[in-house]
Amino acid sequence: MARVTRPWRVTRLGRDGSTRVRADILAGEEPLEIRLGGRSFSVTMRTPGHDFELVAGFLVSEGVVTAREQIRAMDYRSGISAGGERDYNVIDVRLAEGVALPDTSMERHVYTSSSCGVCGTASIEAVRKTSSYAVAQDPLTLPLDVVLGLPEALRAEQQVFDRTGGVHAAGLFVDGELVCLREDVGRHNAVDKVVGWALLEGRLPETGSVLQVSGRASFELVQKAAMAGIPVLSAVSAPSALAVELGADLGLTVIGFNRGETLNVYSRADRVVTDEA
Amino acid sequence: MARVTRPWRVTRLGRDGSTRVRADILAGEEPLEIRLGGRSFSVTMRTPGHDFELVAGFLVSEGVVTAREQIRAMDYRSGISAGGERDYNVIDVRLAEGVALPDTSMERHVYTSSSCGVCGTASIEAVRKTSSYAVAQDPLTLPLDVVLGLPEALRAEQQVFDRTGGVHAAGLFVDGELVCLREDVGRHNAVDKVVGWALLEGRLPETGSVLQVSGRASFELVQKAAMAGIPVLSAVSAPSALAVELGADLGLTVIGFNRGETLNVYSRADRVVTDEA
Repeated sequence: MARVTRPWRVTRLGRDGSTRVRADILAGEEPLEIRLGGRSFSVTMRTPGHDFELVAGFLVSEGVVTAREQIRAMDYRSGISAGGERDYNVIDVRLAEGVALPDTSMERHVYTSSSCGVCGTASIEAVRKTSSYAVAQDPLTLPLDVVLGLPEALRAEQQVFDRTGGVHAAGLFVDGELVCLREDVGRHNAVDKVVGWALLEGRLPETGSVLQVSGRASFELVQKAAMAGIPVLSAVSAPSALAVELGADLGLTVIGFNRGETLNVYSRADRVVTDEA
Repeated sequence: MARVTRPWRVTRLGRDGSTRVRADILAGEEPLEIRLGGRSFSVTMRTPGHDFELVAGFLVSEGVVTAREQIRAMDYRSGISAGGERDYNVIDVRLAEGVALPDTSMERHVYTSSSCGVCGTASIEAVRKTSSYAVAQDPLTLPLDVVLGLPEALRAEQQVFDRTGGVHAAGLFVDGELVCLREDVGRHNAVDKVVGWALLEGRLPETGSVLQVSGRASFELVQKAAMAGIPVLSAVSAPSALAVELGADLGLTVIGFNRGETLNVYSRADRVVTDEA
């Protein structure tokens, strides 16, 4: 079960002719199948850990649930791996009565995407229809120096990255304080885990919060933030064009290249206030 | 149609109190729907450009085709965007007679994954069944200094990254020379474009080649390399545990943290030779 990381013998070679075989730590990556009422709904390649949060957050992102009461139970289905051990890679969800199952009878698109989880929602229009929170109305404003401090605050708490150098992180900040951090080989999984945590804590919508991510800001991350009612997404690296367009359409603040000293605001820049303002 | 990049007005804020609104360039990200014989097969969020290569490479990765003769035609289906312009986000593929359509009648998994494109193949076992090239048998060996030079050679040719700072790159190297480079917001798309180029050039399997990627090495990238017969995958950042396990199983060399002076070899280290050897 300790599969968040995995030991591996690695050969390290240097230009100076050095050769060293040593023990290394790799970030875990395993498939997780999500079932709804026994039927396969989705499979994601994820870093094991916080699996129930991941499932809950994915259901929020997909517009299946908006409150924890809508999930009656989540449990691991037993499976036996090739090695004869029990694995923990299938979770079955029972939704509360009255919660509509997503329409899987139609021919679903299989998204193969840097911004996966866009399943069935190819266009900005489709996303806007499913989001039930008006992030545009969120009155949050943030001092610039608080926003500039978020990447460092996130990085300081990244435990899996410290060991492997190979995972993404997402952190939820309220009043400048980190309230939840999750890591995963997939950036969208890290965000789903954070959103699922918020759902299970009964916190949604996450008004007045900021989602800080370690990498780029794709279309999908803006979508996930909007589905959770998070009004500000801040990324260490670049946003894509579609991410920025969706942010502008939804009234969600998209920040990129947040590098501690400077940052870029691509939409709803009014939420970031400088001392002079 | 010039949507590889997109201009955007951005507000740049500095800790020193500076505020500057300026024109910026964003990496394009748009959905591409792939149809087989008129039926929807997959949708990927990609940076427009080299779309036919992307489609061809995706079909190789999915095990649908192994030679260009198996694709009879690929063409854009006309669609009209919300803005009234023709868009180029749907490609229909006609396969040659006798090429089996993938089984879409079964309930397909919708993968929502950092390593997307794993569609329908949740396990290492499933991948091994579909790969038709024996990369383990590839007799390629590479001088260490050649491998150490690949990230810099790739970076030097990354045109979209130079403008946006926001895309992944994949480059195919033969005898230390870059023969094809593609960029995309999705790392798996960049690889599919390279593999599709190789297919359309009649080059598969790409024996004796190295695939250098700009980011991490996920399970999916190892799988795509194997499907194209590429015996060596080199990444600038960390590989995941499953990527390394798959590489070891297939006899594919997985290299990570290739930073110019040192690198790590996780599987089939015998292919990288030092001067002393």
